[in-house]
Amino acid sequence: MLYHVSMTVNIPTDMDTATVEEIKAREKVYSLDLQRQGIWRHIWRVAGQYENVSIFDCRDHLHLHEVLMGLPLYPYMNISIMPLCRHPSSMHEDDK
Amino acid sequence: MLYHVSMTVNIPTDMDTATVEEIKAREKVYSLDLQRQGIWRHIWRVAGQYENVSIFDCRDHLHLHEVLMGLPLYPYMNISIMPLCRHPSSMHEDDK
Amino acid sequence: MLYHVSMTVNIPTDMDTATVEEIKAREKVYSLDLQRQGIWRHIWRVAGQYENVSIFDCRDHLHLHEVLMGLPLYPYMNISIMPLCRHPSSMHEDDK
Amino acid sequence: MLYHVSMTVNIPTDMDTATVEEIKAREKVYSLDLQRQGIWRHIWRVAGQYENVSIFDCRDHLHLHEVLMGLPLYPYMNISIMPLCRHPSSMHEDDK
Amino acid sequence: MLYHVSMTVNIPTDMDTATVEEIKAREKVYSLDLQRQGIWRHIWRVAGQYENVSIFDCRDHLHLHEVLMGLPLYPYMNISIMPLCRHPSSMHEDDK
Amino acid sequence: MLYHVSMTVNIPTDMDTATVEEIKAREKVYSLDLQRQGIWRHIWRVAGQYENVSIFDCRDHLHLHEVLMGLPLYPYMNISIMPLCRHPSSMHEDDK
Amino acid sequence: MLYHVSMTVNIPTDMDTATVEEIKAREKVYSLDLQRQGIWRHIWRVAGQYENVSIFDCRDHLHLHEVLMGLPLYPYMNISIMPLCRHPSSMHEDDK
Amino acid sequence: MLYHVSMTVNIPTDMDTATVEEIKAREKVYSLDLQRQGIWRHIWRVAGQYENVSIFDCRDHLHLHEVLMGLPLYPYMNISIMPLCRHPSSMHEDDK
Amino acid sequence: MLYHVSMTVNIPTDMDTATVEEIKAREKVYSLDLQRQGIWRHIWRVAGQYENVSIFDCRDHLHLHEVLMGLPLYPYMNISIMPLCRHPSSMHEDDK
Amino acid sequence: MLYHVSMTVNIPTDMDTATVEEIKAREKVYSLDLQRQGIWRHIWRVAGQYENVSIFDCRDHLHLHEVLMGLPLYPYMNISIMPLCRHPSSMHEDDK
Repeated sequence: MLYHVSMTVNIPTDMDTATVEEIKAREKVYSLDLQRQGIWRHIWRVAGQYENVSIFDCRDHLHLHEVLMGLPLYPYMNISIMPLCRHPSSMHEDDK
Repeated sequence: MLYHVSMTVNIPTDMDTATVEEIKAREKVYSLDLQRQGIWRHIWRVAGQYENVSIFDCRDHLHLHEVLMGLPLYPYMNISIMPLCRHPSSMHEDDK
Repeated sequence: MLYHVSMTVNIPTDMDTATVEEIKAREKVYSLDLQRQGIWRHIWRVAGQYENVSIFDCRDHLHLHEVLMGLPLYPYMNISIMPLCRHPSSMHEDDK
Repeated sequence: MLYHVSMTVNIPTDMDTATVEEIKAREKVYSLDLQRQGIWRHIWRVAGQYENVSIFDCRDHLHLHEVLMGLPLYPYMNISIMPLCRHPSSMHEDDK
Repeated sequence: MLYHVSMTVNIPTDMDTATVEEIKAREKVYSLDLQRQGIWRHIWRVAGQYENVSIFDCRDHLHLHEVLMGLPLYPYMNISIMPLCRHPSSMHEDDK
Repeated sequence: MLYHVSMTVNIPTDMDTATVEEIKAREKVYSLDLQRQGIWRHIWRVAGQYENVSIFDCRDHLHLHEVLMGLPLYPYMNISIMPLCRHPSSMHEDDK
Repeated sequence: MLYHVSMTVNIPTDMDTATVEEIKAREKVYSLDLQRQGIWRHIWRVAGQYENVSIFDCRDHLHLHEVLMGLPLYPYMNISIMPLCRHPSSMHEDDK
Repeated sequence: MLYHVSMTVNIPTDMDTATVEEIKAREKVYSLDLQRQGIWRHIWRVAGQYENVSIFDCRDHLHLHEVLMGLPLYPYMNISIMPLCRHPSSMHEDDK
Repeated sequence: MLYHVSMTVNIPTDMDTATVEEIKAREKVYSLDLQRQGIWRHIWRVAGQYENVSIFDCRDHLHLHEVLMGLPLYPYMNISIMPLCRHPSSMHEDDK
Repeated sequence: MLYHVSMTVNIPTDMDTATVEEIKAREKVYSLDLQRQGIWRHIWRVAGQYENVSIFDCRDHLHLHEVLMGLPLYPYMNISIMPLCRHPSSMHEDDK
């Protein structure tokens, strides 16, 4: 099932650079692994913002919850979620 | 270039059914044509709402503007737009 | 899977009473049928408002979408949806 | 009487882990005790958020107030409350 | 139990004056009757607005719901409700 | 003249307990004194919140201002104010 | 006592011009009369809007209420009100 | 030209009293000087709030900008601005 | 002096097409005339919306007010205004 | 392509003055360089605020993103972005 997730990141401006870089590096590894599994279907950056829009394909709500809670940047994020359906006008069968 | 577009549809409850159906039919034809051209990359329905989330791939802002103004349902829509970039953590080269 | 759905009803004040009563009667039949199937788990009225809070148990997002679109009062409703998980502190196994 | 309560938790990101874990452990014990008494009827986690939606069955407003003020996580929560009635379309007599 | 209720009235500007006056007259009778019973404890007008702030003393949420639904002006009102407790600093025992 | 005042208290979570208790004790003394003088007519606690709703009877706006500025908890409060009139449907002459 | 009042006017676009002009003419007469009495101390137009900002000097809240309810344009206005005090830094004694 | 300016002051609760008093004293001197020059036409305190509403008469936008940036309390203020015109119903020629 | 003006147009969906076209034609003539005089410095369309962002150069607030009130589409617009200054980092002397 | 960008700056009040001045100086150099290249077309200061409104002319969304991320003040800014088109009523061909 698909979920539309937008994530806004607010890292405190006084956090030391090394810690920030280390968290971001782990975030990238974590994201790529989920993308390769087909769970994190799309990730786009919102231009000019420290924010992304993503599409997740999860087994159920709990699966989504665990995937998001595992994000290394989660404590610094505001997240909003919308469940998505395949649109009847979509020409894709699997863009469900 | 990619644009994240969300469209909420508010058809007046007193519009006659035949007119509504005719507009929706033209909307579907219009959407499928743009999907086949690769301009309307994705369209998902927001569960439980008369609303979709879409990704458009347009040459420039004017192209996007004309595509949206051509929507048969445009006069009944609220639209919000965010310009998107390829995310540096994306494993896709062309999910720009 | 569980969904938290709140529904606010805005029937136009100039709609004739017989039509309103007929729609409400169909709404009640529709709701009771879904409750008996275990799909509409809970429905509570928000005190003092023409609004309810409900818990739906659906197979997936599309199932929820179809159930809500079938509501006789749907054209007069504002709906907001949150996907729910079983809480780790819940003493119920199936209050998932 | 039933109350719909949603609780959003905002623990400061710089609080030490041991303290956080200790508070959460006390919160769980407190919640389970109230569930067993039938006062905290339902608790669901909102997917992807550090937030829950709950239904309380209290004797009166003061009872609700004391139950909520006793939450170990209360100082870190935003809480919103709606009084609920049994819905006339509910098939349950006691889902009041 | 006490409830804080604020009511904002929006009568359509094209409703004929006789109907408006008739509804308002019934509203006043209804209100006075509830005041005499001790159910509608206080009603104040918000200066400069077609709005009141009221304190109701009801047996339970359902009682409040029925009292509000019976308001002749209810279809033209926006209502917001907060459950109140006696304040520990109050010098009144029964201003519960 | 009557004023509807709602006060929300936000005490920093890292303030030491003794200081908090001392301020609250002074707040209670201050409140009771004004209640006895008939200036602070009503104070109710909003259930589940660190918030009260109050009715003040002051000589004029400046009197209200000075009374509120004198609150020991004022630096930690958000306050909103509405001037009230006696409602023409009120059965009380002095619930002005 | 002084009150800061902002008034936004929303005349329906389909009201006939003669009626609009007649109401506006009465509004102007009404306003000038109150200005001459010293009750409507200031009236300014917000540039580019059909909106004004005004300062009223009234005996009490009820006086303000009656003055505003008498505005010929009142049924088409949104009004917001703030009670004002003389500022301790003001060099005017009577700009109370 | 006239500008409507509202200023809300948020001084951190942990700033030492002597510094606060020194800034406020400079603020008062600064304000009185501008009032004497006819630039700061009116200043009123919003009852119960640490907030004022003011009317400035400046040569142009830049003049207003420099006057506001010079406020000793500026770093702790939220400011909102509306350009004002003389109202055609005003009886004052110079309350422009 | 410069003003940043954003205009959102909401033409009723049931207005007849000929009237709409006639108003838009007058709007364009009006706009071009003001642009040639250097009063309407810039006008841009917000992509995907029936909305523009404009920069006006007016003698004073009243001049701006009269220019905006003269817009043939004014009755169908929501307008918001911000006074602008030349930015100290601007390389243009006259982009005041 | 044009983008409307508004930037609000929130520098912590406890940051030392030398650091603030150094960042602002780099911001000015950075801005002037982009203005000379024709990328940062316009920058205006919003009167009375620590905020600017700007027009950027970028090759694409990614170009805009990199330009904004390079702002020395970026970590202290809230930014909002709207893609712009040439307006059909504009008399300028290149005010695209």
